[in-house]
Amino acid sequence: MKDSLCYWRLEIAFNGTGFVGWQSQPCGNTVQQTLEAKLNRIYNTLAGNPIKVTGSGRTDAGVHACGMTVSFAAPLNPVISGLGLKHGLNSLLFNYGIVVIEVKETSKEFSARFSANAKAYTYVINRSSFRSPFTSTLSLEEPKCIADKEMRKAAGYLVGKHDFSSFAVAINKTGKNPVREIYKIDIDIYAEFVCLTFVGNSFLYKMVRSLVGTLLAVGTKKISAERVRTILEARDRAAAMKTAPAQGLYLMKVFYEKEEWKSFKVERLPFCY
Amino acid sequence: MKDSLCYWRLEIAFNGTGFVGWQSQPCGNTVQQTLEAKLNRIYNTLAGNPIKVTGSGRTDAGVHACGMTVSFAAPLNPVISGLGLKHGLNSLLFNYGIVVIEVKETSKEFSARFSANAKAYTYVINRSSFRSPFTSTLSLEEPKCIADKEMRKAAGYLVGKHDFSSFAVAINKTGKNPVREIYKIDIDIYAEFVCLTFVGNSFLYKMVRSLVGTLLAVGTKKISAERVRTILEARDRAAAMKTAPAQGLYLMKVFYEKEEWKSFKVERLPFCY
Repeated sequence: MKDSLCYWRLEIAFNGTGFVGWQSQPCGNTVQQTLEAKLNRIYNTLAGNPIKVTGSGRTDAGVHACGMTVSFAAPLNPVISGLGLKHGLNSLLFNYGIVVIEVKETSKEFSARFSANAKAYTYVINRSSFRSPFTSTLSLEEPKCIADKEMRKAAGYLVGKHDFSSFAVAINKTGKNPVREIYKIDIDIYAEFVCLTFVGNSFLYKMVRSLVGTLLAVGTKKISAERVRTILEARDRAAAMKTAPAQGLYLMKVFYEKEEWKSFKVERLPFCY
Repeated sequence: MKDSLCYWRLEIAFNGTGFVGWQSQPCGNTVQQTLEAKLNRIYNTLAGNPIKVTGSGRTDAGVHACGMTVSFAAPLNPVISGLGLKHGLNSLLFNYGIVVIEVKETSKEFSARFSANAKAYTYVINRSSFRSPFTSTLSLEEPKCIADKEMRKAAGYLVGKHDFSSFAVAINKTGKNPVREIYKIDIDIYAEFVCLTFVGNSFLYKMVRSLVGTLLAVGTKKISAERVRTILEARDRAAAMKTAPAQGLYLMKVFYEKEEWKSFKVERLPFCY
């Protein structure tokens, strides 16, 4: 019997401001539900056997994406080309703040979630002395943040394979393995903006925002770089500093090829992609 | 008799997306009305003799500002310092997308409108091949725009003292002098974005957006640079190309000192200020 389904892989960007996050929720306005509604409209599969998509991971309310990967299986009939799917989805999704950047056919074996082997997140901090009427939902405004040697030193302690229990929410309750590997942390400066980019094999729940909160405490001179090492070694959530808010965070890219992350570099402010 | 009023000069930035423009309108949500409402709340002058502000000029619906100047006279009582005024206004105005950058005491003679002797506007074009979920209300999306020699040559024809009737809306009906002087036009490129900055003594109604529309026609290879010279010389509105939409335009700065404009340079994307 021939497979009667076609397998697709999308790369999407979205403005997380109006959403309660990626994952479907009973009463929520989520990216996943919005995308599925439009896909099912295009394929006329609203009734019966609706298409379900798999995202590369969950993002929280207010978190943005420049490059999230999504996979799904669609009927072979109606026949819709990759370009047709891209244009159709974009015309239906743009007003919701979701943009489809790329559409590729893939295999049944590919899962946006389980095939991923690395991810990159960028956190944007605006150090301007006045608030911005343009980017306040696209960055964290923290005029006191200094991205100096001390902050870079602190970031250095976090790179590598560690037990990140101190930077994870509710990790002890889930029994999940708290060991993760951070391949690199880049600190880039664009005029008033500081971008912290984290590339790693995978991240625990709210781990990036928790790491940012602690690095920000170094950047604002509340704690020393050495203290970050102590926090990491404590393997205790209570040791970490405040978790940074969602609006500064961007899922930049999900990597499926081994070592693909090595050539990844954030080249401008995420909201300018 | 001593003057019982205090004279203030503000520099403000605003996101024009939600406003129908600067100037007060009977049924409109304007920047001027929003600012006046908050000022009158701070001074408790809502009844009786409300404060009226003077802006350096009108901006249309959807046009943004990084540096608009506003002047007004306020009562001496209650005594409110410049810093108090700045913090008070900012806490009341931020949710409306208006930010007060600077507050200075000034003299009775200063008028944000009549004392101005030059202005700078920047127009932002996004050439990315996909639409942006972050900056679509902060730029014009035009993937075909090439900011090459030809566009720079066309801009060169517009610099100087000219009769700009071809680039003004309803100029013949108003009997206004259509001669204006453009001191310079800068074309700056930031990755996918092209910024066109116009510095001049003053601009006619919708003149900047009309100039941008015609330069864009050069940038997208619809017309030659030479054609821009012909359009200018025609002194006829019908000769010009389509007026560019509002969302890409920013009032960057108003100059009150002679030759102050000479040191002005746009150093980054306007929405990153």
